[in-house]
Amino acid sequence: MRSDAESAVLTELKAHDGEYLEDVLEALRRPSVSKTGEGLQDMADWLTSYLTALGADVRQVPGEVAPIVEGFLPGEGAAKTLLFYDLYDVQPADEPGWTTPPFEPTIRVDEDGRERVVARGAFNSKGPLMGFLGVLRAFARTGTPLPVNIRFLIEGEEEIGSPSLEPYLKEHLEDLRRCDAAFIPYFGTDRSGRTVIRLGFKGLALLELSIAGGAWGGPAERDIHAMHNAWLESPAWELVHALSTLRARDGTLRIDGVDPSAFGPTPDDARLLDLAADAFDADAWLQELGAERFRYDDPRELLEHLMFDATLNIQALSTGWAPGKGDAPTVLPHRAKAYVDLRVVPGMDVRETVDAMREHLDRRGFEHVELSFVTAYDASKVRADEPVTRSLIQACRRHSDDVVVHPLHAGAAPLALFTEVLGIPYAFGGLGYGGSSHAPNEFIALDGLAQFQRSMTSFLFAFADA
Amino acid sequence: MRSDAESAVLTELKAHDGEYLEDVLEALRRPSVSKTGEGLQDMADWLTSYLTALGADVRQVPGEVAPIVEGFLPGEGAAKTLLFYDLYDVQPADEPGWTTPPFEPTIRVDEDGRERVVARGAFNSKGPLMGFLGVLRAFARTGTPLPVNIRFLIEGEEEIGSPSLEPYLKEHLEDLRRCDAAFIPYFGTDRSGRTVIRLGFKGLALLELSIAGGAWGGPAERDIHAMHNAWLESPAWELVHALSTLRARDGTLRIDGVDPSAFGPTPDDARLLDLAADAFDADAWLQELGAERFRYDDPRELLEHLMFDATLNIQALSTGWAPGKGDAPTVLPHRAKAYVDLRVVPGMDVRETVDAMREHLDRRGFEHVELSFVTAYDASKVRADEPVTRSLIQACRRHSDDVVVHPLHAGAAPLALFTEVLGIPYAFGGLGYGGSSHAPNEFIALDGLAQFQRSMTSFLFAFADA
Repeated sequence: MRSDAESAVLTELKAHDGEYLEDVLEALRRPSVSKTGEGLQDMADWLTSYLTALGADVRQVPGEVAPIVEGFLPGEGAAKTLLFYDLYDVQPADEPGWTTPPFEPTIRVDEDGRERVVARGAFNSKGPLMGFLGVLRAFARTGTPLPVNIRFLIEGEEEIGSPSLEPYLKEHLEDLRRCDAAFIPYFGTDRSGRTVIRLGFKGLALLELSIAGGAWGGPAERDIHAMHNAWLESPAWELVHALSTLRARDGTLRIDGVDPSAFGPTPDDARLLDLAADAFDADAWLQELGAERFRYDDPRELLEHLMFDATLNIQALSTGWAPGKGDAPTVLPHRAKAYVDLRVVPGMDVRETVDAMREHLDRRGFEHVELSFVTAYDASKVRADEPVTRSLIQACRRHSDDVVVHPLHAGAAPLALFTEVLGIPYAFGGLGYGGSSHAPNEFIALDGLAQFQRSMTSFLFAFADA
Repeated sequence: MRSDAESAVLTELKAHDGEYLEDVLEALRRPSVSKTGEGLQDMADWLTSYLTALGADVRQVPGEVAPIVEGFLPGEGAAKTLLFYDLYDVQPADEPGWTTPPFEPTIRVDEDGRERVVARGAFNSKGPLMGFLGVLRAFARTGTPLPVNIRFLIEGEEEIGSPSLEPYLKEHLEDLRRCDAAFIPYFGTDRSGRTVIRLGFKGLALLELSIAGGAWGGPAERDIHAMHNAWLESPAWELVHALSTLRARDGTLRIDGVDPSAFGPTPDDARLLDLAADAFDADAWLQELGAERFRYDDPRELLEHLMFDATLNIQALSTGWAPGKGDAPTVLPHRAKAYVDLRVVPGMDVRETVDAMREHLDRRGFEHVELSFVTAYDASKVRADEPVTRSLIQACRRHSDDVVVHPLHAGAAPLALFTEVLGIPYAFGGLGYGGSSHAPNEFIALDGLAQFQRSMTSFLFAFADA
């Protein structure tokens, strides 16, 4: 009986929770920082041993700076194969504000009286990674047949933009396309206990708009005295005028030939938005964001804008002297730069949108504005009735009363790699509370790890049956 | 005979040029940095002794950080009184790039084979200050009757914005208004040998436009994740849109109710512009500025724009993370700031223009853009036929074949203090080559000092006779 098998694993996880926590702590004690290279091979080797001990067939495939750990763990008479994607690298931990050593995981009580594990990578992503693998260990330890085959794809370069991932996918297309769905684990519960599962992500282009004085005009060699703005062009003003044509004051994208309103929510999305609006707590969100008001008042309208608006955001503007320099001379700067992020919704092609932006600028005589992108990937979205999606929602609801489904994440993630390159659906999420990703004192709640493991156990059974 | 007296002084200056140079060097060896307070009293005391030795009645009037050195030196039966204004403080000299100690004046040969004195303050303004006082010493030494009375007003706070000057002028109004004209010495010759005399200066307001998230919208406490731009306002975008309404792309000021074209050149100015255009060397200027092209092609049009356009220049934009930070998170910044300078022409009231800018922003719903000014002063202009102006032009032409008169300086200076507060005309200039004000290796040419002193000698006689 499936339910007996599920109970056996859940009981084992509860009975030996300290040991499954230790799996996570051991991973957290191993710095594996892709930006510096520190400890990557050590972590890959440790992970390889762990997977091998589970009975998986494991291999390391060289990447640009860190190997991809790939593997296969067969289920018993399983019809379906899940592509498990995760990362074993973490951000550097040299930012100020850490109150414990970031690679010495520490258990302490938070402001709500809950125990948490504080360490770099606890939430992003060694907690979810080892939490999931721990569940597989519980299957093995209890002799419970694994109901699905699992194909592992665990990279060590996610925090530097996954340079080896797409080449790997393309090289292993045949093999990977045989998987029924991809799964990316995540601690999706917030502080209040609500878990949100998102069916997709926006796409992203990180852009630089850069202007330097030159043949078109302006000072070309250095910042010069401000009075010369009377007879020379100003790169800073050109940047302001160029930017002002790209987005209306109300936030609407204004790129010639791009109609982002053409890509709104489907009827299914609209139903999910209705439910999300009913559950939406505006005040809690404003407090979380440190803001006094949203751009729109109605929760339903607000959530639709959040999820389905393509946005062009200014991250930084830079021209002239650095702020805070008291006795700066008055200058006409010879260079100006804007760092912006374009977030596109499903249905928009991010590269075509950037091309349209280039043409838009050219058409207005802004040929001298250089437009370059650091990174760009498309949006992706999975239908709510995909088996993998339904299974995740069902598994989370089995262990929590407060699970909300959003049609799209307001944030961006390059998961079109799965839907577009491999052509398979994905699910992303799980129970469990954690936070402070890419920030000091990153953490997961101790009871969050247990919740996460319960949801993962049920997910594997649900997916096998779906 | 006036010409004999003039010859006697000119001969003395030439015969003992080393001693007159030594006056300048001695002043340059005394650091007097108003921003740090270093050596101000020492310099004031030394200057007081120097003036006393000339026979002047001298007094120190306490200022905010440095005394104003005031004095009176009577001419012999002189009908006119000249108000001599200058400064004895200098900028700090801690910027990189100095190749000799900035307070140990060094004589060295420049790229054109000319000897120059390199020291902080050589050009701005101890060279002109001591060069002028040296001329008075030459009068005394040769027993030549001084043809005008001289009222000294030498401050030690110019480089920190002259906080004690306007109060001083207002307290000594009666006395100072008895002066016939003010004079500010300057090494006005460029590298090519051309001397430009300007009849006025633009006015200036240094402004900050600042936006922080708050009741109007936007993140109020900290920079937050960029995706929230979909439902929160962006201070950076508001700044871009606010700025874009204030100035057209072609440089024209666009402040509601302000028509800067209403204050163009007078017919006299137009004639001076014609002459200036004939003498204008566009290529030399472009090279000097490190630019490839001006905004306009025709020299006459170009110079009119340079001198008679009110301008709004962006000096710096600041929002989000500092440039160069490689792995910055993608943020929606909670603050944005622009540092701009508004330059007004004679006829415009700078404070009224800033008030109009405030109303312009409010009318467009930019009440949340804070507009503050650090400093603000009006433009000033003196008629070409004022005796003090004619005398300076005549004196410079007596010793140089290449003297051009410009109706207005493109730069700003608070000389409306003389024309508006005291109600007397002023002249500004002199022969002599120097440069790198507020920059490393500030200098005056040795032959420039001699030329300057010749022009000052002739100026005093010309003004007495004008």
